[in-house]
Formats: sequence, structure tokens, C-alpha cells
Amino acid sequence: MNAELITIGDELLIGQTVDTNGSWMGEQLNLLGIKVSQISSIRDDRTHILSSLDIAINRSQLVLITGGLGPTNDDITKNTLCEYFDSTLTVNTQVLEKITAYFSSRNLKMLQVNSDQALLPDNCEVLHNSRGTASGMWFEKNKVIFIALPGVPYEMKGIFLDAIVPKLKDKKLVSNVVNKTVKTQGIGESFLAEIIKDWEDEINRSGLKLAYLPSPGIVKLRISAFGGDEKILSQRIEYFIAQLKELIPDYIYGYEKDKIEEVVGNLLRKRKSTLSLAESCTGGNIAHMITGISGSSDYYKGSIVAYSNELKESFLNVDSNSIISHGAVSKQVVEQMALGANKQFNTDYSIASSGIAGPNGGSDEKPVGTVWIAVANKNRVISKKLTLGDNRERNILISSLSALNMLRLMLIK
Amino acid sequence: MNAELITIGDELLIGQTVDTNGSWMGEQLNLLGIKVSQISSIRDDRTHILSSLDIAINRSQLVLITGGLGPTNDDITKNTLCEYFDSTLTVNTQVLEKITAYFSSRNLKMLQVNSDQALLPDNCEVLHNSRGTASGMWFEKNKVIFIALPGVPYEMKGIFLDAIVPKLKDKKLVSNVVNKTVKTQGIGESFLAEIIKDWEDEINRSGLKLAYLPSPGIVKLRISAFGGDEKILSQRIEYFIAQLKELIPDYIYGYEKDKIEEVVGNLLRKRKSTLSLAESCTGGNIAHMITGISGSSDYYKGSIVAYSNELKESFLNVDSNSIISHGAVSKQVVEQMALGANKQFNTDYSIASSGIAGPNGGSDEKPVGTVWIAVANKNRVISKKLTLGDNRERNILISSLSALNMLRLMLIK
Repeated sequence: MNAELITIGDELLIGQTVDTNGSWMGEQLNLLGIKVSQISSIRDDRTHILSSLDIAINRSQLVLITGGLGPTNDDITKNTLCEYFDSTLTVNTQVLEKITAYFSSRNLKMLQVNSDQALLPDNCEVLHNSRGTASGMWFEKNKVIFIALPGVPYEMKGIFLDAIVPKLKDKKLVSNVVNKTVKTQGIGESFLAEIIKDWEDEINRSGLKLAYLPSPGIVKLRISAFGGDEKILSQRIEYFIAQLKELIPDYIYGYEKDKIEEVVGNLLRKRKSTLSLAESCTGGNIAHMITGISGSSDYYKGSIVAYSNELKESFLNVDSNSIISHGAVSKQVVEQMALGANKQFNTDYSIASSGIAGPNGGSDEKPVGTVWIAVANKNRVISKKLTLGDNRERNILISSLSALNMLRLMLIK
Repeated sequence: MNAELITIGDELLIGQTVDTNGSWMGEQLNLLGIKVSQISSIRDDRTHILSSLDIAINRSQLVLITGGLGPTNDDITKNTLCEYFDSTLTVNTQVLEKITAYFSSRNLKMLQVNSDQALLPDNCEVLHNSRGTASGMWFEKNKVIFIALPGVPYEMKGIFLDAIVPKLKDKKLVSNVVNKTVKTQGIGESFLAEIIKDWEDEINRSGLKLAYLPSPGIVKLRISAFGGDEKILSQRIEYFIAQLKELIPDYIYGYEKDKIEEVVGNLLRKRKSTLSLAESCTGGNIAHMITGISGSSDYYKGSIVAYSNELKESFLNVDSNSIISHGAVSKQVVEQMALGANKQFNTDYSIASSGIAGPNGGSDEKPVGTVWIAVANKNRVISKKLTLGDNRERNILISSLSALNMLRLMLIK
């Protein structure tokens, strides 16, 4: 079954609102095994809506439409749908009763525009909206199902889950698909592709599908399996993930929605260990990531952001001779920073960073993007040099992710 | 001129990635006076890409395509474009040199998939990508312009701003429109609307357009003027901005792309003053914002993230009795933190934060979202209580922005 989504609203086309409805419905339909082939965001414009429906009816079996069902004047979807499906608007007394009850229960005055929401096409099945006053509508034409929903995400989601999913299941329109996403840190997309080439070929031969989803510092691998029993599909995916783990053991930090700072936090909590940070070039970003996780005070004690050399010396006991002979961006200094943090904050583990985040400040010997990272516990300190580009934001982000992955590896090894 | 955008990638259809490229390009084109009528997200599928191009060529004069230009196997856009535009892939030696330089400057091994990125259609104009290795491509067919861009937002934006905008201007494809955005912090959208009501009415009467662009902690006001001489349009906008400054003097912190942390940084640099931070609930986010600005080491000395009460006492000299009698989230403690930071880091100005970021950890007296902020110089300390919601990320962000605006006001008054 091929589905497509049409999201209507001028605000989507001028960058005022990012279309999250399309993405959310895409995810839900995908989980139900329905393939979404297109999401179109279009203007509140009669002609454009009609032509989009005409294109959709010839290539899809299921069309979901959101937006333009509200009570205000710029919402023209309902009238246009009436035109397309040869409907007449008539008062749906059940819906009118519900709208009236909705307003009276909230002690709100009901306006004409509100009661007009009970005016619905006479040849659709009305889908009840328990979260608002704009009903959903289910039409069928030329054996294609068209479903119109309000654009307010909270209301759209309610109707989708309460009314549409059960109805699709009743009609036996949903097949099975299982997806799993593996998250990696520390290896670029093309190097990863090189290492897992044979494994990827076997995935493809088995009729499964692999997608690379790169973002700065992270490459996600999504494996999808289609058709048949869900349990068997999951097992097939797990078989390939087990192989992948042997191919790239150090790079995989989690699955699905896992965040690396959360994975590291859980490891620390499990070990009843504490963490401190001594950040220079990452400038507080690692602290920001760590403390973004609710409950991080269980293991995170605090940080020093030591942007000046004086602070590196006075707070972290970095030897001034090391700074003079090797520079602040060096293995020697970053390792002393990490050891100094554990001592000053009385913690079990620490992370330190020192680098040239850019875009300025580099030299021939140490170009912009040179970053040293160290992680330490009571017994040892390890460090690593990164050679990044000249984008400051990206360098800070990749350095932070790399540092967290280094700590993760120290914790599990 | 009618434009449409096609964003390619299976990940957009299954809800793994929300399409922000379409929204961003829609905004940029709108600012240039180009009307975007549709954003279509489609699969990495040859037939589908071809049919989408066929539909677009018959209704639009400008088609922007993103995604599928990466080096890995699932990226098929380039070959499909070749087919559609009757191109042959040939090695572009200039691009190959740049890719080679990119890899050698980073001391990275160049793989076949990387050098293949220099294989480009022979009948397009290549748009240089200064931020990555996938070039943009400018095709023309049946008097319609097609522009293909990589899907990585950072790279796409670079090519858009560096190459596409100048080229559209050269070709006189953009009509005159002048936009100016005023950025405010510290006042909600509806309160702001109330204060500037008459001013807004006058804007509308004058044929200019006002848009409210709210985001957590910030409301941007975009004023647009259309048609005619650009200089006159700018003058008309400046007239209204001068009036606005008198209406809301404390809330306006900047214009256009100004970041509040940059504005504060420039004020500190101008005064040759230094800054330190003592963060608790903001957890390093203010440091992250400050150090995100290149050159911030001119004024920013360092921070302590004092997540535990012990650290507040030992590093910042907060009186333990104050913590016992008033709690860590209190006016007394946050003011001592700010004063302690200036003393410990030997700085002229400091910011301190202490609060309950949530979603857990609140009490009846101090519910989640209670945040105290202080700013101090050598002579005085001022503090403010914020009452926010239960969203951790949002609370951290709004607290950081409020703190920076407090410091800004202290610096200019």
C-alpha cells in the first residue's frame, strides 16, 4: 500500500513553521508497515489543493491531509474537499452536540465560526476529535482513501491514534515492518561504509534495507525488514546487529533514541561513580550536554571552564612549564587538566579538552581544528588528538561527542 | 516567479528526520521575494525523483532539490539528475583538486567514494561547497532553473548563501524586498503585542508587514517592505524601528542575526571588562553560548559549574548557613555565587544561576521552573526570580537568555 501526505498551510512554505505533522504521520504509518512515498506541503490555495489531490489519486492508495480545518477564514480546505468529493455541507447533529458541550464545559461563549465546525461533507465518515472541535473526515473515491485532519499537532495525533489506526487495522490495510537504528560515534560515513561493505552487501542480499544517517560526529545506521511475522523480522535484524557489533565494537554507543551523554550517565550511575569536567575549547558544552539529562546530579559534580592559562594552572594544577614547552593545546596539558579535575572536584572520572575551535587562532604547527581530549580515572589517563575543520560550532560538538565516547570506552573496558 | 522545493531522503518519509531544509529554504526565498508554492519530501527512488521533476518543470520556474549527493551507496540523486538532464558524469578537475586538498589538509585518507564526488554532470554549472565535498549543481531546462544541493543542512546553507543568492540577484530574478528583524528578550508575545498595538496598526496602514516570530525566551519582530527603491524601503523600516526602541527600550537586544551572547561580548570588549560565570541550573549552557563566539577569550576568563552545594561553598564562598536557611535556589545564594565568581576568577562582571530545571525536583514552595539569576560587578549585585514551566531544555535556555539580557542591561546603564 502506497501512502502520501499533504500538509496544507502558507506558514509551512515561508519557514514560519517547520512541518512536524508530516514527519510524525510518516513515522506512525511506517511503524504500521505502510510505505509513505511523499510528503507535500502546499499553500492554502483552492487550485493547488485540487491539483495535489488529482496527482495523489493516480499514484497512492491512501492520502492523509492536514491543515485548514480550523474556524478562521484562511482555512479553505473543507470547502475545497467538498468540491473535490462532490459533497454538500450539512450539519452533523452529533458533532454539533459535542462542540456545544465542549464550549459549555469550559464556560466559553460559542461563536458562529465554532458551530460552523459541525458543518461537514455529507459523503464522508466523520472521525471524532476528542481534543478539539475540528472533526476528521474519511472519504473514498476511485478506491483511494482520503483522510482529512486538523493541522494542530495535538488534535491530529489524537484522531490518528484513536480513530485511524483502528480503522486501518479493521480493513486489514497494514502489513509488518521492523526498523532498528544503530548509533555510532568516532568514524566518518565513508570509512564506516568501507569497513562494513561485505556486511552491507549481505543485508541487501537478504532483502533488508540499510540507510546511513550522518550528522556531525555521529553516523546512524538504520536497518529495516519488511513483510511477515514481526518477531522473525526483529530476529533477522538482531542477527545483523550482532555481526555489526563485532565489526565496529568501539563505535556503537547506542540504539534508537539513545543519547551518548545519557549512555555515559547510566554507566556512571550503575558504577556509583562521579564525574567532573575541565573544559577549555569545548567551553562548557560537555557540561551542558551532561546536565541536559534529568537526574545527572546523581553522578555529575561540577566543572571548571578554564579558558585562560592562569586558570589551568591555578585551578587544575597544570604545570606552567608544560604550557610553555608544549603549548596549552597539547597532550601534556590536557592530561594534567583531567588529573587536576579529578583531584579538585574529588571525582572518580574526568574529561578535559583543549584545542583551537576556530575559525581563527591556528598556527602551522597547530592548525584550527586541532583538539586534544583526555579522560582520566584514579589509575590512568588517556588522551587523543582530533584533527577537525574550521567550523567552530561543529568542532565544539564533535569534540564533545568524541570525549563522551572516550569516557564510555574507559567505563566499559 | 514560482518556486518549489524537493527534499530527497527515505529518512524524511519515515519520521527519522524532520525536514528542516525545506523550511529554511522557504524562509530564505520568501525573504528574497520568491514565492514557494510547494515543498515535497520524496524517497531515494529513481522513478519517483524523475516524476517529481516532470511535475515541477510544468508549474515552477525555480526548483531546488536537496539530498542524495553524499558519497555512500544509498545516494542516487546524482545519477538520476544525469538521466533527467541528459548529462554525462565527468571528472571536474577543479572540484577534484579541492576534495584532494580538503583530505590532505586534514591528514585523512581519501577513498574512491570521496574522489567520486568530483564526478559531476557535464552540462550543469557547479556550485562550490566550501563546507564539504558534495558540490551543488545548477541546471536549466525548458527555461526552468533546477538547483541540486547536498542534504546536510550546514553544507546546503553555505552553498545557498554563497553561490545561489548572488546568482539569483545577478540574473535579476529577485524583486525588491527589504526585511529587518528586531530581536527582543524578556517579554512574551502577547504582552509585547499589547504594548506595540498602535505602532503595529500604523505599520499595517503604511503597507509594510509585521511578523511575530516567537521562540523560547526570544520574540523576533520582522518588518518587511516591498517594491520600489531599496534605500527608501530601508528608511521606512528604520523610521518604525526608531519608534519601537522608545516603546520597549529594555527588551531589544539586537537585530538580524545578532546573538545576545555576541552583543554582551562586544559590550565587554569595548569596556575592556572581563566575565566569569557560576552556573548551577544552567549547567554550563551560558558558558557554551559565550564560548560559541569566536574571540570570546578576549573577555571571558572561565566558569565554575557548581552542581553540588559543597562546590558552591568551597569554590564560590557561599555561606553554608544561607544554603541551610534559604535553600540553594534563593536570592541569597545566587547573589553570593555571583560575588564569589568575580572574586575567584578576578573578573569585572559575573553571572550566576540556581534553579530547579525539572522535570522533577520541585516542592510546593519552590516548584519546578523556579530559577534565580544574579549578575554582579565590583560595586553591586542584582538578582531576579524566573517562574518557568517544567520543560528542562526550555528552562535552561530561557534562564540563560534572561541572564545574558540582565548582564547587557547592567553593562549599558
